[in-house]
Amino acid sequence: MAFDAIETPFGKIDRIVGGSATYVAYAAANFVKPIQQISIIGADFPQEEMTELKARGVRLEGVEIVPDKKSFFWSGRYHLDMNSRDTLVTDLNVLADFNPVVPDSYQGAEFLMLGNLDPTVQLKVIQQLKIRPKLIVMDTMNFWMEIALPQLEEVLKLVDVLMVNDSEARQLSGQFSLVKAAREILSMGPKYLIIKKGEHGALLFQEDKVFFAPALPLEEVFDPTGAGDTFAGGFIGHIAKTKDISFNNMKTAIIVGSAMASYCVEKFGPQRLKEITRKDIDDRIQQFVQLVNFDIELV
Amino acid sequence: MAFDAIETPFGKIDRIVGGSATYVAYAAANFVKPIQQISIIGADFPQEEMTELKARGVRLEGVEIVPDKKSFFWSGRYHLDMNSRDTLVTDLNVLADFNPVVPDSYQGAEFLMLGNLDPTVQLKVIQQLKIRPKLIVMDTMNFWMEIALPQLEEVLKLVDVLMVNDSEARQLSGQFSLVKAAREILSMGPKYLIIKKGEHGALLFQEDKVFFAPALPLEEVFDPTGAGDTFAGGFIGHIAKTKDISFNNMKTAIIVGSAMASYCVEKFGPQRLKEITRKDIDDRIQQFVQLVNFDIELV
Repeated sequence: MAFDAIETPFGKIDRIVGGSATYVAYAAANFVKPIQQISIIGADFPQEEMTELKARGVRLEGVEIVPDKKSFFWSGRYHLDMNSRDTLVTDLNVLADFNPVVPDSYQGAEFLMLGNLDPTVQLKVIQQLKIRPKLIVMDTMNFWMEIALPQLEEVLKLVDVLMVNDSEARQLSGQFSLVKAAREILSMGPKYLIIKKGEHGALLFQEDKVFFAPALPLEEVFDPTGAGDTFAGGFIGHIAKTKDISFNNMKTAIIVGSAMASYCVEKFGPQRLKEITRKDIDDRIQQFVQLVNFDIELV
Repeated sequence: MAFDAIETPFGKIDRIVGGSATYVAYAAANFVKPIQQISIIGADFPQEEMTELKARGVRLEGVEIVPDKKSFFWSGRYHLDMNSRDTLVTDLNVLADFNPVVPDSYQGAEFLMLGNLDPTVQLKVIQQLKIRPKLIVMDTMNFWMEIALPQLEEVLKLVDVLMVNDSEARQLSGQFSLVKAAREILSMGPKYLIIKKGEHGALLFQEDKVFFAPALPLEEVFDPTGAGDTFAGGFIGHIAKTKDISFNNMKTAIIVGSAMASYCVEKFGPQRLKEITRKDIDDRIQQFVQLVNFDIELV
């Protein structure tokens, strides 16, 4: 849970609430309650945001508030293609000493979503859980592959699903072909691998099975910040709601995640996620169905 | 119909038969006969290749043979990502004076596939047809947008389906968003637009409708030469077989084209296309069905 300053070809915002856990929570809360949030914030994090999250069924006992420090702050500028960005500022602030504590009241959680963060922090959360969740999903990024690969590899052995983007899959595996990359990564621990390809959709791999989910062709991507986290939130939200961790249900969960992400990018920060209704989500999911639906008779 | 010399990270071949029309014919002949080929070759074009094409139902009365000249020759080297390539040699040879003549025996053709070539040549073929085909499909490339845009725009007004890749769609429309690019291009004449995105699949646009077809995640792309032409051949082959030019059937045709292209890239030149059987094609199409198939109940 953090603050972002974002500059895109379409506009600029100096300070908006962000952070993986924020996006995951706003997305997942559409599907399942309660969400049991673990994070760390400073005294500057807005009370209204906490109230809003609580109203949506997000429990905050696991969110540590450090009174004399500031929340994590990230500032970035997107290039015209919206696929690449420059980081302008990273102020760790409270995140520098984040030692996550899982409240007793959270024990027994069936589904765990590890947002993109230091793998050491991700590991500490797993280690505190007295009952192993039904499904552990992990997000990560190239930064952790560069500075904390051994720790990352340790966490990989403990999770069920890994989510990375295509360049990260290539970096982690040392393979250019995504099919080969997937095989390599699946041998490192996770049973499922989701490779996110932005505007080109996502791939789900398990053993020799593969599923290709489209991205909705959008007129404009206004702000991609948080799209990956929102995807993760929709994914775990659908899984937690249905309690079905089969390959088939993960395909559906990816479509749900993609639908949520397609809303996220329409406005700055998590703003759009707060506006949409259940009907908006269903309509968007229907658009995905139409987008890829075809009848084939072998010819 | 031409010769290519190809260098990829996986190997090198000094001289192999190629050319848009060759790939289109080998692909389409799996679905419909006769294929009525229009092209130009030199005395060097192998008689065995002509015999092979004829055996597959490809008529060659429209292929002009220039006895004292050489066939078109292209040589290129692919980069490691296989998405970009450098052209090393382009010898126009017979193509410099290509004046296509539609034989009387070809008149009445219901489906016309205009391979990637000078739009002036494409136009001459359309103008010679006494009965307007049910469907005219046009392939083109950035090169013609740069040196023959007015002629290209004239042909665009006469065709039903345009096929281009994503960067060409952006170049032709001046729009970065593919949704906006499609709207712009559809206002230039074609009723349907297919945007090919290589390993990321393809999009089909008509009015406000859009369809997203995946590409099969492949272990290796051995040689991408001719993949776009093979896609076109599978597409028009399926349409001509079914004689159904609806949006729905075009979706199927794109899957068929994608399946054919996925075989093309497995070996140098059109080699793999000559080996595969009807069963191979059906198996590959089934893989596409599996790849994107999902059941969704609104949640």
